[in-house]
Amino acid sequence: MSFKLAPDWDVSEWLNTPAPLTLQELRGRVVLVEAFQMLCPGCVGEALPQAKRVASTFDDQDVAVIGLHTVFEHHAAQGGRDALAAFLHEYGITFPVGIDRVSTQLLPITMAAYKMQGTPTQILIDRNGYLRKQQFGSCEDLKLGAEIMALMRE
Amino acid sequence: MSFKLAPDWDVSEWLNTPAPLTLQELRGRVVLVEAFQMLCPGCVGEALPQAKRVASTFDDQDVAVIGLHTVFEHHAAQGGRDALAAFLHEYGITFPVGIDRVSTQLLPITMAAYKMQGTPTQILIDRNGYLRKQQFGSCEDLKLGAEIMALMRE
Amino acid sequence: MSFKLAPDWDVSEWLNTPAPLTLQELRGRVVLVEAFQMLCPGCVGEALPQAKRVASTFDDQDVAVIGLHTVFEHHAAQGGRDALAAFLHEYGITFPVGIDRVSTQLLPITMAAYKMQGTPTQILIDRNGYLRKQQFGSCEDLKLGAEIMALMRE
Amino acid sequence: MSFKLAPDWDVSEWLNTPAPLTLQELRGRVVLVEAFQMLCPGCVGEALPQAKRVASTFDDQDVAVIGLHTVFEHHAAQGGRDALAAFLHEYGITFPVGIDRVSTQLLPITMAAYKMQGTPTQILIDRNGYLRKQQFGSCEDLKLGAEIMALMRE
Repeated sequence: MSFKLAPDWDVSEWLNTPAPLTLQELRGRVVLVEAFQMLCPGCVGEALPQAKRVASTFDDQDVAVIGLHTVFEHHAAQGGRDALAAFLHEYGITFPVGIDRVSTQLLPITMAAYKMQGTPTQILIDRNGYLRKQQFGSCEDLKLGAEIMALMRE
Repeated sequence: MSFKLAPDWDVSEWLNTPAPLTLQELRGRVVLVEAFQMLCPGCVGEALPQAKRVASTFDDQDVAVIGLHTVFEHHAAQGGRDALAAFLHEYGITFPVGIDRVSTQLLPITMAAYKMQGTPTQILIDRNGYLRKQQFGSCEDLKLGAEIMALMRE
Repeated sequence: MSFKLAPDWDVSEWLNTPAPLTLQELRGRVVLVEAFQMLCPGCVGEALPQAKRVASTFDDQDVAVIGLHTVFEHHAAQGGRDALAAFLHEYGITFPVGIDRVSTQLLPITMAAYKMQGTPTQILIDRNGYLRKQQFGSCEDLKLGAEIMALMRE
Repeated sequence: MSFKLAPDWDVSEWLNTPAPLTLQELRGRVVLVEAFQMLCPGCVGEALPQAKRVASTFDDQDVAVIGLHTVFEHHAAQGGRDALAAFLHEYGITFPVGIDRVSTQLLPITMAAYKMQGTPTQILIDRNGYLRKQQFGSCEDLKLGAEIMALMRE
């Protein structure tokens, strides 16, 4: 098998982190990116709670959990930084979340670069920056735990 | 026991209804009012799904289910009509929802009139307009089903 | 509508009650009968937990919750009083449970008299002993709460 | 760290397998042993469903899932082979299950050899037969998935 490097993300603003994060800086760690929208029921009910479980199960130095707010609909409602900050606060989400940069196209830039089909999308990037998993929708905890550990042990 | 008439609500805008609704018009029906905020996890995860179950279990002519968006925090994020409309669309909420009127005080006007302590708050009003239940937080389905039927059979 | 009187049950042994119970003695109360088998997953996972919720939600003088062990398969495993007693103890079931009397036919006697299709079966009997509901499988709590209260208020 | 070899199990009868299984034969595979009793609510509601998920998530050649029926109470009810066979059939458990051999002591022999505290107990044995985890009670899927994969990748 050969894998491709995960595209860099293009984030206009970051929350829950003192400084912007790049994939380059996260080399050495497994990275779970959870692409979501704050008004997406499947994100709120399943994907984000699972991402929180990942963040509390694994050591931050082994697995970096990153939220990516990929707004492609309801921009007025969920496009702003304040709305997202309120959402993260209320839902107790403390891992870093980047706002995917709006483009002139329908999809924001990172979402388009990864050719995501919608939200939630779950992405796993290995310690060397290669894209190892990209899944639209949800995944069972047992399987995700195994996938993350497999990348940790490479 | 004696009960007091439920205070009228003061709603600045309505969604999911062609015309404003008054308590007066709903006389003859049991009314379930679910006061919520769109960024309140207990509302999104428990109270609103329960209100949807009530709306699908009982005949609309017996039980009117009404959402009341009582925004008292994060006004920038959840205070607008568009944000709420997007939320209702995404979560498949089709019963009428009123936006509680903002006041110069912390709490919006209806929320203050009912002395609600927060969101979610569940309110039951009987066929004659009397306030029969007001509970901050959640309630088990079995109990709520019985409470509603008790009011229907009066 | 006209209803028929609920057939008497034919119980060979009772648990969780100092003396045998008859439907006649329960007149004046709404009766929920939950017919189950201790090795039936739908009974253990759904019907019996729901019956426990009914028993804890309603006053015992209003609603009598009765379990009926209608063994029609795996007799060696679940046919004995000791096995059932152990099961009730482990699952914290404290309402009265009768063992439906074995017959020379496939189904035990009460199960046959009610023409039940399998387990779990949920039965509601009104204050006057009339059979008001018989459902194979499960029912939502909201609906069951309403059904019970409707019978209480007759 | 040093680990000790997992004690051999002492099983009086096997179900769901054409021939008895020994730990020795399972060398090369990660082994999940779920010690349970068929009338233990935590086993039926959590541990066994999780073991089924493990069996369906991982390849049988990588991970062997084994049930161990460690009866230490209610012997009359759950001590027999027929009762267990009925239980496994009803709950759709298809992985091999051994009946821990009764001894003159309170605990059956394997349960005593492992010094288990009760049921459910979850045991992980690595490819070389070393005991790597023994936990009384339950564990989150995410963590278990990672633990299994960590042993698979050694």
